[in-house]
Amino acid sequence: MNNLEYIEKHKKRFLVELFELLKIPSISADPKYKSNVVESANMVKDNLINIGIETACLYETAGFPIVYGEKIIDEKLPTILIYGHYDVQPPDPLELWSSPPFKPEIRDEKIYARGACDDKGQFFMHVKAAELMIATNQLCCNIKFMIEGEEEVGSSNLEHFVKEHKNLLQADVILISDTGILGNETPSITTGLRGLSYVEVEVTGPNRDLHSGLYGGAVANPINILTKMIASLHDEKNKINIPGFYDNVEQVSNEERKFMAQAPFNIDNYKKELQINNVYGEEGFSTMERNSIRPTLDVNGIWGGYIGEGAKTVIASKAYAKISMRLVPHQSSDEITTLFSKHFHSIAPEGIKVKVTPHHGGEPYVSPTNDIGYIAASKAMEDTFGKKPIPVRSGGSIPIVALFEKELNLKSILMGFGLDTDAIHSPNEHYGLFNFFKGIETIPLFFKHFAELNNKKN
Amino acid sequence: MNNLEYIEKHKKRFLVELFELLKIPSISADPKYKSNVVESANMVKDNLINIGIETACLYETAGFPIVYGEKIIDEKLPTILIYGHYDVQPPDPLELWSSPPFKPEIRDEKIYARGACDDKGQFFMHVKAAELMIATNQLCCNIKFMIEGEEEVGSSNLEHFVKEHKNLLQADVILISDTGILGNETPSITTGLRGLSYVEVEVTGPNRDLHSGLYGGAVANPINILTKMIASLHDEKNKINIPGFYDNVEQVSNEERKFMAQAPFNIDNYKKELQINNVYGEEGFSTMERNSIRPTLDVNGIWGGYIGEGAKTVIASKAYAKISMRLVPHQSSDEITTLFSKHFHSIAPEGIKVKVTPHHGGEPYVSPTNDIGYIAASKAMEDTFGKKPIPVRSGGSIPIVALFEKELNLKSILMGFGLDTDAIHSPNEHYGLFNFFKGIETIPLFFKHFAELNNKKN
Repeated sequence: MNNLEYIEKHKKRFLVELFELLKIPSISADPKYKSNVVESANMVKDNLINIGIETACLYETAGFPIVYGEKIIDEKLPTILIYGHYDVQPPDPLELWSSPPFKPEIRDEKIYARGACDDKGQFFMHVKAAELMIATNQLCCNIKFMIEGEEEVGSSNLEHFVKEHKNLLQADVILISDTGILGNETPSITTGLRGLSYVEVEVTGPNRDLHSGLYGGAVANPINILTKMIASLHDEKNKINIPGFYDNVEQVSNEERKFMAQAPFNIDNYKKELQINNVYGEEGFSTMERNSIRPTLDVNGIWGGYIGEGAKTVIASKAYAKISMRLVPHQSSDEITTLFSKHFHSIAPEGIKVKVTPHHGGEPYVSPTNDIGYIAASKAMEDTFGKKPIPVRSGGSIPIVALFEKELNLKSILMGFGLDTDAIHSPNEHYGLFNFFKGIETIPLFFKHFAELNNKKN
Repeated sequence: MNNLEYIEKHKKRFLVELFELLKIPSISADPKYKSNVVESANMVKDNLINIGIETACLYETAGFPIVYGEKIIDEKLPTILIYGHYDVQPPDPLELWSSPPFKPEIRDEKIYARGACDDKGQFFMHVKAAELMIATNQLCCNIKFMIEGEEEVGSSNLEHFVKEHKNLLQADVILISDTGILGNETPSITTGLRGLSYVEVEVTGPNRDLHSGLYGGAVANPINILTKMIASLHDEKNKINIPGFYDNVEQVSNEERKFMAQAPFNIDNYKKELQINNVYGEEGFSTMERNSIRPTLDVNGIWGGYIGEGAKTVIASKAYAKISMRLVPHQSSDEITTLFSKHFHSIAPEGIKVKVTPHHGGEPYVSPTNDIGYIAASKAMEDTFGKKPIPVRSGGSIPIVALFEKELNLKSILMGFGLDTDAIHSPNEHYGLFNFFKGIETIPLFFKHFAELNNKKN
């Protein structure tokens, strides 16, 4: 039985198993869902045991457990470490979902559910690909799984785990599916990721909420001030207005920019798909550049005062915002967080107190295309898509990739199968059946090519 | 038995009755509390009937009912129309209340509850003062009550009621307690009110929430844009940056400004009480001027994106704000709302759609101090406080006062007994027992002086 036949024979069961996982609201950001996150971890562990990774177990951390499992078939063979995460983003705003986020369903050849693509659907391809390789006796590399439950909240306990378990995690390459391809007919592999600095800001004016008639105009209104402070963080060219922010930004050469500009991109489709009449961003850079090689500053949430129905004439005592900055090589997450905090305090007018609380961060990452890991992925995709994949830099962040390089001295191959339109982190997240099964088909070929390339190298 | 003896004898019952009213969450802004608002109207009606206003009944409107009742003792005597409102502001944020907003309690000689001052506690003084005058046979003017249930949401159905019931509402003066005094030893009467224009704005960028990594920097982020748009509404001198906004603003003479500056005001106490290290506002005007004779623009609420715990890297599709503008003579609420809306649309960048929804508004108001209504109030307060009250302009808005003048051709006397520190519209709203009973003591004297002055006039 060849691989495609195996997939065809078991595809219904693969989906049933994935759906069980998608049904669990493993929202790591919200303490209400703590037991669901743990339930999810246990299910992943059981899945690994069921396919023949008998050693699978949970490693407890200060936060959510890490599922680890390995199958060492021969110590002389290369080892591939699979990373993924079983936690998901909060699903709100719930009212915008066409079907409940934790009741997965298939519509239009797509699986709709929170986590369908990011990352339950994607890491589960590796579980099923491993099942296939074990069941059909073609596993040609040792395999290790490390599936964590805190990726959506900054993987804050993963660093400690990695540092403490360097031997356990020894491998030749890390393989991750938590990114996307340019299109179902345009395969691509992510070679760069942006870093992240994420802060929560609180501005406080008067010590209590005030009547806007009696105090309006006479005291600093924290919401008005917060809007002024945030607005001032971009200049008229949409450059970020924080002293020192661009000091270490990698200057991508004109040659490289020309090469990047050749990737297929249709600005009209982009606008149409988002229903916007124009794009917006840093002067002097294209849309593709703005969301890959340039750093950004976005407000991810803002709140303060009366937000219920109707009208209330109040001056709030406090206003809040969550602000994230995407970083590019060679910015440092900690440095940028410090620059932000210092600057944000400095621009507060008299009458306003400021508090800046850093959330998680992560470093930017670039991987070379001449690494045998990259070449194995490229060959595997070429086999299954019939086209050589394009190397692209993504605007997203997977902070642990930089961590793995630093602590384990391993490159990560970002061979993901999602699409930009999958609405990850949004209502109606989905993952194409095509993509799910294409992943399961491609992964064993990565193992095959990696083993061969590794042989040649030695 | 003189008036003070009557009050002393019945004060416990007065409080019990007021507490029953305060226990009802008559929050007109929130549809959830609809039945409570109506329950509150019925209780007010029953209270009026109990004190001898047998005609009291509910007038249904398109919104909440208006409680009306009258006692005509002699058609030749002058008639005083009492206005008040039985609805209250929403109590949130609930967690900042020391005792539940709808479980009134006395601490430190103050009644703590939502509505304790604004306006249940204040209009109820008139009910109890009427009881006193009727019970002790000293009612010397006809009395009419009009207590509405939509003041906190813009009195939108009152205009229609007033227009349709001009005969019913015929009177010589309107008496309202919904304002304050400068201090318990500094009585004052409000002679001016600011108008109000209140809008809700919605800005829309992409058609769905987006992942801030994949789209960050490349599309207009509605929250960032909203902060920019709002920030631009004030210039560097904190003047409001809307073309035409100041065109009709009353230019108060330097002489009048000098007179106003004599009112007792201690900026250090003001800052200390609010725990702010400085005041803030329009350049060239004092704090007292900023919140009385100058128009303002305040954000009363703002929201968008992820506002739960933890971090979510999302670009929201929409962001919202509630914005109110306080107006001064001779600005018009409708005109200002139109100017705002036009300007706000004009400053939206490409890629952003704007919606402006007007909430209620109201016109500014100034009342003369040589009117016999004002003189009667001044004499009554002088009798009970032992000091002549100071005429002051308030920064707040009671839009119906301008409506009454226009439709009924009646001046309103704003003889309120609250304090700036009563935290109306805020957590821990309260009303001093001193103020409650001082009001009940003062109101019958207003009736007495008004009857006498009216006699002299004729």
